[in-house]
Amino acid sequence: MKALKKFLGIKHPIIQSPMAGVQRSALAIAVSNAGGLGSLPCAMLSPAELHSELTSLRAGTDKPVNLNFFCHTPPEPDAQREAAWRDLLAPYYDEFAIPQPQYPPSGSTRAPFSREAADLLQEFRPAVVSFHFGLPSTDLVARVKAMGSLVLSTATTVEEAIWLEKHGADAIIAQGLEAGGHRGIFLSNDLLDLTSQMGTFALLPQIVRAVRVPVIAAGGIANARGVAAALALGASAVQIGTAFLLCSEVFTTPIHRSALKSEAARHTAITNLFTGRPARGIVNRIMKERGPISAAVPAFPLAGAALGPLRTKAESLGDGGFSPLWCGQNASGCAELPAAEVVRKLAAGASAPR
Amino acid sequence: MKALKKFLGIKHPIIQSPMAGVQRSALAIAVSNAGGLGSLPCAMLSPAELHSELTSLRAGTDKPVNLNFFCHTPPEPDAQREAAWRDLLAPYYDEFAIPQPQYPPSGSTRAPFSREAADLLQEFRPAVVSFHFGLPSTDLVARVKAMGSLVLSTATTVEEAIWLEKHGADAIIAQGLEAGGHRGIFLSNDLLDLTSQMGTFALLPQIVRAVRVPVIAAGGIANARGVAAALALGASAVQIGTAFLLCSEVFTTPIHRSALKSEAARHTAITNLFTGRPARGIVNRIMKERGPISAAVPAFPLAGAALGPLRTKAESLGDGGFSPLWCGQNASGCAELPAAEVVRKLAAGASAPR
Repeated sequence: MKALKKFLGIKHPIIQSPMAGVQRSALAIAVSNAGGLGSLPCAMLSPAELHSELTSLRAGTDKPVNLNFFCHTPPEPDAQREAAWRDLLAPYYDEFAIPQPQYPPSGSTRAPFSREAADLLQEFRPAVVSFHFGLPSTDLVARVKAMGSLVLSTATTVEEAIWLEKHGADAIIAQGLEAGGHRGIFLSNDLLDLTSQMGTFALLPQIVRAVRVPVIAAGGIANARGVAAALALGASAVQIGTAFLLCSEVFTTPIHRSALKSEAARHTAITNLFTGRPARGIVNRIMKERGPISAAVPAFPLAGAALGPLRTKAESLGDGGFSPLWCGQNASGCAELPAAEVVRKLAAGASAPR
Repeated sequence: MKALKKFLGIKHPIIQSPMAGVQRSALAIAVSNAGGLGSLPCAMLSPAELHSELTSLRAGTDKPVNLNFFCHTPPEPDAQREAAWRDLLAPYYDEFAIPQPQYPPSGSTRAPFSREAADLLQEFRPAVVSFHFGLPSTDLVARVKAMGSLVLSTATTVEEAIWLEKHGADAIIAQGLEAGGHRGIFLSNDLLDLTSQMGTFALLPQIVRAVRVPVIAAGGIANARGVAAALALGASAVQIGTAFLLCSEVFTTPIHRSALKSEAARHTAITNLFTGRPARGIVNRIMKERGPISAAVPAFPLAGAALGPLRTKAESLGDGGFSPLWCGQNASGCAELPAAEVVRKLAAGASAPR
């Protein structure tokens, strides 16, 4: 059961982290064709977009691919909280001479996995479906499994790993706090208290000890040595995101790319300002001025609506001060290479005798 | 230069973390005699106590030993800040029916490395002297080196590692944020902002890449697999503390031992409440009720004076709610074994072919 490579049908125990907002099927195809497991982030895709990406995936690779979904419970919009947050941001709207965004929020958001999404997958039968923020309802998990897909989800604590195993996860991603992007936290009632979050070095072996399913290490892994170290700690595979952020198959913005290549990438923080859920990105102006974690932020994923226009305006001026510059704590693996080359370099860490 | 084992004259690349308040020479002797590098925490010892421990060390082992000192700048006492902090704690003094402690604070504290300490070392000529919170003045570093001692210090960021190498450290301890006890932070102006602190998986390889001196990994390493993983990431040795906290040579309190053996040890946080500097320990009542990080706390090491009487009273009632229960994020290596046995088990991770 621990031989996840064979289990997943992949050559290298390397999973590319799904990175909503910066990649679609091109990266997943390149990684899967190179012998890793490519991932398509589906949370921000409309049904039509999802269908189109699934068609591209099928045309681009016959290797296993992972489709990633969020499975949060969408919050009730809260006009008062939204207004208070917009008030806190008012000086910035003034500074950039843009109107406060209308309430209720509109535009791009993140939708949880649904029956409609499952219907779309039915035809495609992906090798792997991974979830963030727990697992969807029992019947949806059963439907995914009935397609023959392996179900993965992310644990940020030992308790979450035990819960996921009990609720049907076929493998568990141990997300150390070094990881970039959204933390998979789903059992905590208090998303402002991050003291439960552990570094990969502590979290991974404790999860390996607590569950029987294979464990995939995520967080801080940037090169072949990192892969070897994670396998030494008992991981069956690794999941890596940041190291792919400069690949030609990724549409990371120029501002984000430039931050990743600079010394700024050494200073990241977990912040809830951009979406309402804690996620790690490079520290920028809004994180410095409001603090990376704020109790005033609307619930996930609604928070994005208020910051969106500031981000757009600032980026048009070459300013990343209001952009989510997702990045893990170890950007040293970022390289402007084709994704296949990144996979090849990482895979060297899995072939050393252990 | 990277062959730190040979460099230090030890058999196993395993350094026992100095743990002020819970150990003296007995642990250091046991670890050094077992082929690791035992450490004596000297920051809380009076000159007479230090002399006595040095005499014990000399009698107990002819192997290399590490003497550890703090090198902070003692703060000016600040009556107003002290009073405000005592006011915040007033409900607890009332609850336990004890008087507010007198100001100015008295009793046990932590003194920085000094000429007097160097004089005492002169006769002993320790193999290794390690520092926490940077390095002492240039002339004191020169004196230690002139004794033939290797100088080690702790870095919590890449910048600190580069600084330490430039200022004469012979090897650098990369302290991932998983580590228990005091964070070695010394270049930051804001000890309340911990976003610069990285997990071992991210910090270690970035420091290895940034300096030429050997790097020692600390934080989250609990067993042989952890040792192997740290070496895979480029460490020349590891420094481990938490795994020794239940050893017979350590005088960890019964309350602390019991917390370490319980599920409570899974939830630690970095807190400044106990001393004024961020340090990782098991989350307990005072950390929950005041928050682990507070801007109201007096400067290091003065904060301890106000909490001390509460700790003493609560502990007399079997209550660890006000005690610093130092612990890293991975207590899974804690075992009630002689320290030599812990070293032997850890060392298995250093002998695997890599």
